[in-house]
Amino acid sequence: MAAFTNTRSVRIEWGDCDPAGIIFYPRYFEIFDASTAHLFEAALGMTKFEMFRKLEFAGWPLVRTQSRFLKPTRFGDDVVVTSTAIFGRTSFDVAHKLSLKGELCAECNEKRVWTVRDAEGRLKSHPLPPAVLAKFEALAS
Amino acid sequence: MAAFTNTRSVRIEWGDCDPAGIIFYPRYFEIFDASTAHLFEAALGMTKFEMFRKLEFAGWPLVRTQSRFLKPTRFGDDVVVTSTAIFGRTSFDVAHKLSLKGELCAECNEKRVWTVRDAEGRLKSHPLPPAVLAKFEALAS
Amino acid sequence: MAAFTNTRSVRIEWGDCDPAGIIFYPRYFEIFDASTAHLFEAALGMTKFEMFRKLEFAGWPLVRTQSRFLKPTRFGDDVVVTSTAIFGRTSFDVAHKLSLKGELCAECNEKRVWTVRDAEGRLKSHPLPPAVLAKFEALAS
Amino acid sequence: MAAFTNTRSVRIEWGDCDPAGIIFYPRYFEIFDASTAHLFEAALGMTKFEMFRKLEFAGWPLVRTQSRFLKPTRFGDDVVVTSTAIFGRTSFDVAHKLSLKGELCAECNEKRVWTVRDAEGRLKSHPLPPAVLAKFEALAS
Repeated sequence: MAAFTNTRSVRIEWGDCDPAGIIFYPRYFEIFDASTAHLFEAALGMTKFEMFRKLEFAGWPLVRTQSRFLKPTRFGDDVVVTSTAIFGRTSFDVAHKLSLKGELCAECNEKRVWTVRDAEGRLKSHPLPPAVLAKFEALAS
Repeated sequence: MAAFTNTRSVRIEWGDCDPAGIIFYPRYFEIFDASTAHLFEAALGMTKFEMFRKLEFAGWPLVRTQSRFLKPTRFGDDVVVTSTAIFGRTSFDVAHKLSLKGELCAECNEKRVWTVRDAEGRLKSHPLPPAVLAKFEALAS
Repeated sequence: MAAFTNTRSVRIEWGDCDPAGIIFYPRYFEIFDASTAHLFEAALGMTKFEMFRKLEFAGWPLVRTQSRFLKPTRFGDDVVVTSTAIFGRTSFDVAHKLSLKGELCAECNEKRVWTVRDAEGRLKSHPLPPAVLAKFEALAS
Repeated sequence: MAAFTNTRSVRIEWGDCDPAGIIFYPRYFEIFDASTAHLFEAALGMTKFEMFRKLEFAGWPLVRTQSRFLKPTRFGDDVVVTSTAIFGRTSFDVAHKLSLKGELCAECNEKRVWTVRDAEGRLKSHPLPPAVLAKFEALAS
């Protein structure tokens, strides 16, 4: 299946940075987590909040992640995050690339599981809804 | 009604601090929010997670807060937080004092509302359960 | 002196919200802190990072803050933050109003001190540079 | 070279958790980052703040990280973090294992670089001080 990519701009703020004056790296994961939601929003035309209401969906917990940090960023930087999703049956991968003025600063690959709630209210993995996949497929280049 | 006070120690971490090398003040509110939970845990003998299961309780949203910041703290500091609750009927006030080596560094007063879920699942204010008040009263000095 | 106001839009993200499904209130203070930086950026035409380089400036630590929380916000909400500064000699006040679809959800008043580094590298309060005040005054309505 | 391990307990707080009621995974990285500092503190007998003052040291930026998330944790959980360092010449690896009641919930491997400031104040990698390595070696099992 082809891949769908979304791009957004994020301002690094003072409060994202540590005493070395550069971004505290857990903030990158906050940015990547939000970028995954924005990727779906761009494809589906609904926010994650609306996805909970309108889809068989109870979240996409992270199974694993790999990241590389190449150049630091700092407060005042407007970074660009490019996120690409590739879908399996019950899981999907998102690759995020974060760059500043065209230079790659950080990248992250995440594997997530599509979940629904079972009868007891517990999260369990579940095939991605065909309508979701169809939307991504229609947009993929 | 008399007041109940709980004291705990918190380590300020590198990631709590900003490029000025001192704590980024929203981290204080994370500390105070957790200190309110620890105050109830000390009084009731159950975590906030258990409170959701065992009590008529759906959270204690903040209504207002006032804070003063007197001296900065920095990573490596082991600060002491003293939290005191005073109860109304459906709301309560918590006063937090955060100090380092006996010197007051920050203080915060918060007003919170005790809530339950209504039939539609929305949060609404509700009188504090008498059993909760009784526990605090028994411990108050 | 007249006041200068800046307005910006902020998306509340999944990771800003707590198990009640609404924003965890310390995240509001992260938003307000960044909003103060954006207010100065709008007036001075430089980021906070550039302010450190180009002005007699070592940060604006918070002295005190007062906040009220009227209605919760949740992930997917695009809130509007309006921030207004009023200047004293070595300190200034910023009033933030955060609203969703025209309804006020939270407001916060903060008093901050303009600081420089003394010979030993410690932060000390200092009169706001006349050039900074002049920029705000020229823009104030 | 043999490895040195440090273990500490961390309470997962309400504010660490997301609307699914489980920990928001960037909080794990905050915990792991602090765990690396606590590992060095246990070995060297000084906080990271003291390390900046007493050692040729300007921080240990992350180069890459790999993580797996096996079971969610939630507010009220007291998790145990076991952190083990293995040293190279200018870099070191830390393996963190986070478990709840003996069950592994998350693990993370991080590669970090030891840095000092060059004449222009920029971070550059630098061999770990022999005194630091000697301390860890003496403690390694």
